[in-house]
Parts: sequence; structure tokens; C-alpha cells
Amino acid sequence: MRAPQVETASGLPAEVTIYEVGPRDGLQNEKTVVPAATKVEFIERLDAAGLATIETTSFVPAAWVPQMGDAEQVLGALGAAGVSRRRPVLVPNARGLDRAEQLGVQAIAIFGSATETFAQKNLNRSMVDQYAMFEPVVTRAQEAGRWVRAYVSMCFGDPWEGPVPIGQVVDVAERLMGLGCDQLSLGDTIGVGTTGHVHRLLEALAARGIAADRVAVHFHDTYGQALANTMAALRDGVTVVDAAAGGLGGCPYAKSATGNLATEDLVWALHGAGVRTGVDLEALVETSAWMAQQLGRPSPSNVVRALTS
Amino acid sequence: MRAPQVETASGLPAEVTIYEVGPRDGLQNEKTVVPAATKVEFIERLDAAGLATIETTSFVPAAWVPQMGDAEQVLGALGAAGVSRRRPVLVPNARGLDRAEQLGVQAIAIFGSATETFAQKNLNRSMVDQYAMFEPVVTRAQEAGRWVRAYVSMCFGDPWEGPVPIGQVVDVAERLMGLGCDQLSLGDTIGVGTTGHVHRLLEALAARGIAADRVAVHFHDTYGQALANTMAALRDGVTVVDAAAGGLGGCPYAKSATGNLATEDLVWALHGAGVRTGVDLEALVETSAWMAQQLGRPSPSNVVRALTS
Repeated sequence: MRAPQVETASGLPAEVTIYEVGPRDGLQNEKTVVPAATKVEFIERLDAAGLATIETTSFVPAAWVPQMGDAEQVLGALGAAGVSRRRPVLVPNARGLDRAEQLGVQAIAIFGSATETFAQKNLNRSMVDQYAMFEPVVTRAQEAGRWVRAYVSMCFGDPWEGPVPIGQVVDVAERLMGLGCDQLSLGDTIGVGTTGHVHRLLEALAARGIAADRVAVHFHDTYGQALANTMAALRDGVTVVDAAAGGLGGCPYAKSATGNLATEDLVWALHGAGVRTGVDLEALVETSAWMAQQLGRPSPSNVVRALTS
Repeated sequence: MRAPQVETASGLPAEVTIYEVGPRDGLQNEKTVVPAATKVEFIERLDAAGLATIETTSFVPAAWVPQMGDAEQVLGALGAAGVSRRRPVLVPNARGLDRAEQLGVQAIAIFGSATETFAQKNLNRSMVDQYAMFEPVVTRAQEAGRWVRAYVSMCFGDPWEGPVPIGQVVDVAERLMGLGCDQLSLGDTIGVGTTGHVHRLLEALAARGIAADRVAVHFHDTYGQALANTMAALRDGVTVVDAAAGGLGGCPYAKSATGNLATEDLVWALHGAGVRTGVDLEALVETSAWMAQQLGRPSPSNVVRALTS
């Protein structure tokens, strides 16, 4: 079957915004370094397939993440459409914002941590010191009229610390949103969360004034939980879901597949339940099959494999 | 992380019975023919890992399914414990029941079709003629005090016919349950169903007197929907879930992975949400890692890969 049988579900939103992270979070975690021209074609094909919101790249130093070393090249080739409010870029710090501003980027994302260990390892500072780093970035971006998203990573578990208390995640989210961010993305960076956990975290955030309409969810499929968790979040009022075309970011040959939720698997689930996404599934599958060829390996997306076999 | 953080979910049952189909539905769809002794060890290890209900084998003619040609050998080696009411076997017809009865099997499963094409291809008769074949099997088994499950395959879509009307599935289910079966297992044989579809089918069955407490769900993960669909069914009152240890039945190297929902991924989801299963996840993962070695390829289960990498 090329499309799911449509049987409307109760308790789901009528429409979901897919926040496509394939070109950034997906490719960043692929071993094969993809040429800038291929990234540009990927983004343009995703746009043509109806993905209205696409995170295009990251302004991290190339020394940290070589895969994202061509941010200027990619955005330069995309032109004005590539720096709109629907084309956020990851900005780790003030220097990253400088670079993004020079290209006229209208939307940025900062990347905070819900745990001490990951803050030290990824941000090179303590959890409490992350706010001092992000504050001038968010303030400057907001004053210039840019849209700002705050990622919080390790919301559902940490590879070094294990369980992460919900209260700790809510504290971090509150501080970051308090800086003036427009959207919060809850990241299950290692893919360990389950549906009850999603519900309890959303409930705790709402109790502190961060309602589901400002929250996005970002699941990795390492433990096979990504889609189930996403559907749980949608029933709790979330309407923005992060996903990566083709499940980029995890190789199916690796012992542990750590990729993002595949956009195609999400679209199948949503269209089947009668939820609008604006996405042309066939065009998206073709795009991911093409990208899998560029990477020289099969797509980890179940839908891509089913529809191209 | 070796176990999920427990955050209880509302709307889920306190306990779920996992109906383990790895030795039958899983191995039946693996290319590598597994020796009877390995199957016996597999079943015994599953039992030791806390899987109380295990479908052990199938009494189909060996000419149809060579992988299941050793049913007598497997049950012979398992002894009395292997033919209890918690060890159902698949019985396609009266001849299969004869063979099962000779071994003292206490629980059987018949395998019906929700579509005309699959009835012709799998049962070699029309949909309407399947009842005449199953009726004497169910009657004889019931009169002898045996427990009977009715599988219905292609409930959510058919590879030849495409969409399958919910009313058609309900008609088949009603006829099969009307023969006197104890449990109905709704099979998404090609893995295309979505959460709204699950809800609407369960709703339609309940309206015709087949309540969720007599229904099990059986999802394949071909389109990545198996766990999300299972969680949807649990919220609608289902408490019996079919799953295969290690996601057996689908090879991760194949372009299209058609395996069953992996028991480990299900257990992770349930334990995280505070739902009891009686399963020792570590022992189960070890068992599936061992079976993957026997089959000479990595396990398709995300949890198995994550915990053994």
C-alpha cells in the first residue's frame, strides 16, 4: 500500500507542524560528510515535498562538527528563502549568532542541557552557567525580531547520569523560556523515554505556565519508542513534532540505531489518523531514498524501506 | 540506560499479558531454518525470562512451511509444560488438530482471513468457506476443553486489495468468535494500520458484542507503526499483546523489514509507563541476542541493539 487507510482518531490535533531536522540533526550524526551542493538539493527537495519548516544547518565551529562546516555555503546557495522564519539554524553561542546574522537568518535555535554531565561535555560549562551564555544570544536575536527556539537535550534520561528528574527538566525549560524564547523543544537525545514520562513532563511544564502550544517534541528511536511517544504528546496538545527525513542520524547497519524519528513514519501515522501535515509522502520518500544513495546505505525509515522495496 | 525511568501513565491497564509469538510467527518468517533443539532452548529461555504465554509451533504441513516441520519434535522435547494452556499451537485444519491432540496440546489457534484474496492464497478457499473449515476444529477442541484463539489476518490492509473496510473485519471476527473461540487476535499482517484505525476497529467490535477483554492485537512493524498502535489499543481496554522476542520475522538487512513488534521494545514501553508484564528484560535481551547469533544476523529489536552495543 502506498498510503494508509484513513480512519480518524479522536483526541489528536487536526493539523501538525513537522519541524524537519534532517539536514541539521540528521546529517550532523551521519559518518559520511555530505557536500554542500547535496545539502542544498536535499533542503530544496524537502521544501518541494511540503515540509514548511526546515532546520537547515548549524553555526557551530567546524572544528567541533566538521559535517556542519559549510553553513555559509549552504545558506548562500539557498538565497532569501533559505533564511526565512521557517528556516531556523542552530546557533550555539554569540559567535554563531554573528555568523547567522551576517547571512540575514530570521530564526535561530539554541541548544541547552537538562543535565549537569551533558552541559559539561557539550557546552563546556555547568548547567547553571548555560543561562549566562544563552541570555545575550536570545536577547540580541529577539531585539532584532528573530524567532528563537530553545532545545533542551537529555530530557528523558542521560547516558552518564541515568534517570533525569522531571522537576530538573522543568527548571531548565523555565529558565530558557524565561529568556524570551518562542518555542521549547524537548529532546529525548538517547531515545529512552516512554509515554507516561512524556505525559508527566508535559503536565509539569503546563503547571509552571509552559503550555503545550509552545512545546515541540524531539524523539530519537534508539529504543523504538519515538512514534509512540510522539502520539502521546499530540494527545496532550502538542502540535509541533521534530523529525528527520529518512530517519537520518542513525545507520541501520550499526548495532545501535540512534536516528531521529523518521518523518515518513510520522507522516504515515498522522495521515492515517486524518491529521493534516501538508506533506506529499511519495515525494518525501523519493527524497529520502535519494539521500540514502548519497550516504551509501539503506534508509532506517520503515516507510521508506517498505515503499521502495 | 538498562531500564526505563518509570513514570506512570494514565489510561493504561495495570498489567499486560504478552502473547509471545517469536518461536512460531517469528521463526516461520525467517529464512534460516532453525534446528528443533535450538527452538526448544529458545522456548525454555523465553519461559525463564518470564514470558508466561508462548505460541510454540504450527501444525501446518511441512510442505507448506518447512520451518515448522518439526512440531512433534519440539513439543516432544518440551514435555508436559510445553503443551499447557499457556502454550498454544497454530492448527490450520482438522488434520492439524489431530496431530496436536496426539501430543496432548491444551490450547490451539486457528488462522482466518479478513480478505477474499488472502483467504484464496493462504487458505485455498473463499472467505465464506473458511467458517466451514474452522467450525469442526473449534467445536472438537472446545468439547475437549481446549482453549481456542482465532487469528484474523489482514485486518488493517491487504497487499493485493489495499484498504479493508472495518465492517468486513467485524463480520469475519463475529463469525469466528461465534464458533466458540475464547480470544480474537487482530492481525496487521502487513503493518500498515494507524492509531485511529485501531480505535475505530475496536469500537466497531465492541458495538457487536466483542469487547476488548476478549481481544488481542498483533502488529508487524513494516511501516514503523507497531508500538504506537499497540499503545492505542491498550488505552481502549485491550490487555493481551502479541510480540516476538527480538522482533523476529524481519531481517534488518532486507529492504523491507516486516518483523513482528519486538517484545523488548514493548516491555520497555510498558515498564516505563508502570505497566506490569512479569518479564525480566535483561534475560529476554540475552535470549534474543543469542537467537540473533543462531540466525547469523543482528536483531531488528531497537532495545536489543541498544542494550547489546
